Amino acid sequence: MSYNVAIIGGGPAGYTAAEAAGKAGLRVVLFEKNSLGGVCLNEGCIPTKTLLYSAKTYDNAAHASKYAVSASEVSFDLPKIIARKQKVVRKLVLGVKAKLTQHQVQIVSGEAFIEDASHVRCGEEVYECEHLIICTGSDTFIPPIPGIDKTPYWTHRDALNNKELPQTLAVIGGGVIGMEFASFFNSLGVKVTVIEMMDEILGGMDKEIASLLRAEYAKKGVTFHLSSKVTSVSYEEGLVTKVFFEKDGGIESVEADKLLMSVGRRPVTKGFGLENLHLRTDERGRVVVNEKMQTSVPAVYVCGDLTGFSLLAHTAVREAEVAVNAILGKQDAMSYRAIPGVVYTVPEVAGVGMTEEALQQSGRSYQVVKLPMAFSGRFVAENEGVNGICKLLFTDDDTLLGAHVLGNPASEIITLAGMAIELKLKREDWKRIVFPHPTVGEIFREAL
Amino acid sequence: MSYNVAIIGGGPAGYTAAEAAGKAGLRVVLFEKNSLGGVCLNEGCIPTKTLLYSAKTYDNAAHASKYAVSASEVSFDLPKIIARKQKVVRKLVLGVKAKLTQHQVQIVSGEAFIEDASHVRCGEEVYECEHLIICTGSDTFIPPIPGIDKTPYWTHRDALNNKELPQTLAVIGGGVIGMEFASFFNSLGVKVTVIEMMDEILGGMDKEIASLLRAEYAKKGVTFHLSSKVTSVSYEEGLVTKVFFEKDGGIESVEADKLLMSVGRRPVTKGFGLENLHLRTDERGRVVVNEKMQTSVPAVYVCGDLTGFSLLAHTAVREAEVAVNAILGKQDAMSYRAIPGVVYTVPEVAGVGMTEEALQQSGRSYQVVKLPMAFSGRFVAENEGVNGICKLLFTDDDTLLGAHVLGNPASEIITLAGMAIELKLKREDWKRIVFPHPTVGEIFREAL
Repeated sequence: MSYNVAIIGGGPAGYTAAEAAGKAGLRVVLFEKNSLGGVCLNEGCIPTKTLLYSAKTYDNAAHASKYAVSASEVSFDLPKIIARKQKVVRKLVLGVKAKLTQHQVQIVSGEAFIEDASHVRCGEEVYECEHLIICTGSDTFIPPIPGIDKTPYWTHRDALNNKELPQTLAVIGGGVIGMEFASFFNSLGVKVTVIEMMDEILGGMDKEIASLLRAEYAKKGVTFHLSSKVTSVSYEEGLVTKVFFEKDGGIESVEADKLLMSVGRRPVTKGFGLENLHLRTDERGRVVVNEKMQTSVPAVYVCGDLTGFSLLAHTAVREAEVAVNAILGKQDAMSYRAIPGVVYTVPEVAGVGMTEEALQQSGRSYQVVKLPMAFSGRFVAENEGVNGICKLLFTDDDTLLGAHVLGNPASEIITLAGMAIELKLKREDWKRIVFPHPTVGEIFREAL
Repeated sequence: MSYNVAIIGGGPAGYTAAEAAGKAGLRVVLFEKNSLGGVCLNEGCIPTKTLLYSAKTYDNAAHASKYAVSASEVSFDLPKIIARKQKVVRKLVLGVKAKLTQHQVQIVSGEAFIEDASHVRCGEEVYECEHLIICTGSDTFIPPIPGIDKTPYWTHRDALNNKELPQTLAVIGGGVIGMEFASFFNSLGVKVTVIEMMDEILGGMDKEIASLLRAEYAKKGVTFHLSSKVTSVSYEEGLVTKVFFEKDGGIESVEADKLLMSVGRRPVTKGFGLENLHLRTDERGRVVVNEKMQTSVPAVYVCGDLTGFSLLAHTAVREAEVAVNAILGKQDAMSYRAIPGVVYTVPEVAGVGMTEEALQQSGRSYQVVKLPMAFSGRFVAENEGVNGICKLLFTDDDTLLGAHVLGNPASEIITLAGMAIELKLKREDWKRIVFPHPTVGEIFREAL
């Protein structure tokens, strides 16, 4: 069997590439060993947002009196929340499948193995291809903490399917995934403790905003241990899990019914014959790609988490489009200037472009404009007793470099700043855009 | 007293102009006869959104079971809802005042009267100015319906402050204002009937989407009479109000406890000496302005509803910025290519740029792309049992002309399409922007 394009991995990168290539009339084969949609759709972005929305609905009903609405006996049904999540995932997986089928993509269920740049084996079958796009994604990284091999723990996957609430939960790793689960379980009444190695939660996001979010969750009852390096974990059958960590020069510990490991994710590079391609890698072992996502072997492209650039679904989607455009001979190039990052907590956090920390490190001079979200009338109308912040960063000649927002719906409005950054708009160009009133997005305009 | 700029009217156009001119170091006087913030802030955009958010909170709590959350005895307290609205308005009016004071704007409370282009009188005082910006806004238009003089009715102003729910409400005029109040009262359990003269609700918005919204509200129990011209109203003390209208060649009638008049708004042109300026007007009596918002008298500018272009606060804001830039000698020009329109119903409707109807009328050829909102994973996660639609209109060479959305949060994401239209992006330019996943805004990218 011979194809124009073979794609390994059916996550956002893989299915986007397959759809785009199929739409363009290429013969495409897509290999997926688990579920179409990958981690993002099956056990990442979408299921977490579904759970978080139920938690938000619960929160909102429980605190409706802020808006002069009262509801008594507000409760939730966790098995039903999980069941709804499954239904949403199923619906979206079917949607992906329908789009691929519509564009004549051959979907092969099974583990693919690369024999060389033009041959992929799956089971007994060998598939020939002119171009190969590798989108194997990433996996949860479990650090070799002493005791972890004898301690039951959740990854995001288990946490998503758990139907019985623990009373207490320890979260190792206060990045985006850790904080979204902390938010979910905190909303449902679980006592959550977050242990983070760095001096702030949320990794590479704006530190000031991360600290404000942390303060918000501290108020809601989450305990944080920052600059705390986990040294060991212990567990005895039927008893609580104990997490020991170094903090302020001493050793402290936290006890919890359950442990969630959310330290990070690592690209999946093994088990599918990647080594047979002899692709050029950098000093950190990552496959080197050019701005067309092309590797040192011209017919081979790498997209998504495997590139190790941002481990975000939307980066993967754009990379896949770029790769297919390269195959089609269309002018295109990947740009990482305006990749938004979002944390779906309550309130949401979102950022795009450079952070103040990155600018300070680079030694570039910049201007910063900060506004409380209360400068948006709609924000005030819909966020009783809550504030937030919008921070814009400009070059000295008023070109937008970065935007960082704490406050709902940061996730939806951050794209406005992403457009401005990607299109290299100056302050005055952006200000010529008419923003509907009243919207939360107007906060950007207020800050201009 | 001598000023660089005198501004009549403290609504969005007036306060924006005053802030911008003050910030630039000009001596500014602003006249406002009622409350700073104008109709928009005091009895329009902001108060309606505050009430609608309480209604939405009530709705969400009452229907929380869709998300596996249950709440019993959900109720609301209308006087408290109104009180919260007042508090929000007060806070935002103070915010406007603070910004003006910060930029040394002289605020004069009282009715201004234009003596000539450089003299404005208020009470005993005469203020001299180099430039005059007129922002007197608009007023509710009450058509001369037989019987209306003897019938008590609400305008939006009364409806906003009413603390006792009627059982039934008749709304004359199914435009944006009429539909937002229909939504509010429908959510709170009032039986609402909307009588609209045109063959569809929501005036100049996309007709297909307007009809979908109407179907949604019909399901929620609102009765609609389209193509129905009100011929008279009647009222007897203590009895119901009756609205008679022509429909399908016959006369029908509706009875209701209360009547809301939301037929439309008219620019305020009288009572403040506008006639003393002898400005050039068009065949419809509207003041003629150039792209700098400058009238036939070069030192006189007109901004906001008084221009009669769109009667929207955000149009007024942008016009005011343009006028001040003209006074400051900065390059700028008003563009009406991408003025968004939003209806804050549940779900929201938003549109920007051209509609299909306008394109058909103009005889231009165009491409249309329509997607159900269920193509956005986040939309599916957060909108159980609800669908929506996204419609994009392109020129034949793939330049975006219009975007129309039914589904939350249409209000916030429509600005993305507004940016694309204003910046004349082509389909492929817009597609190079990375949209965070999962967001509802991604629906645009899906449609590209």
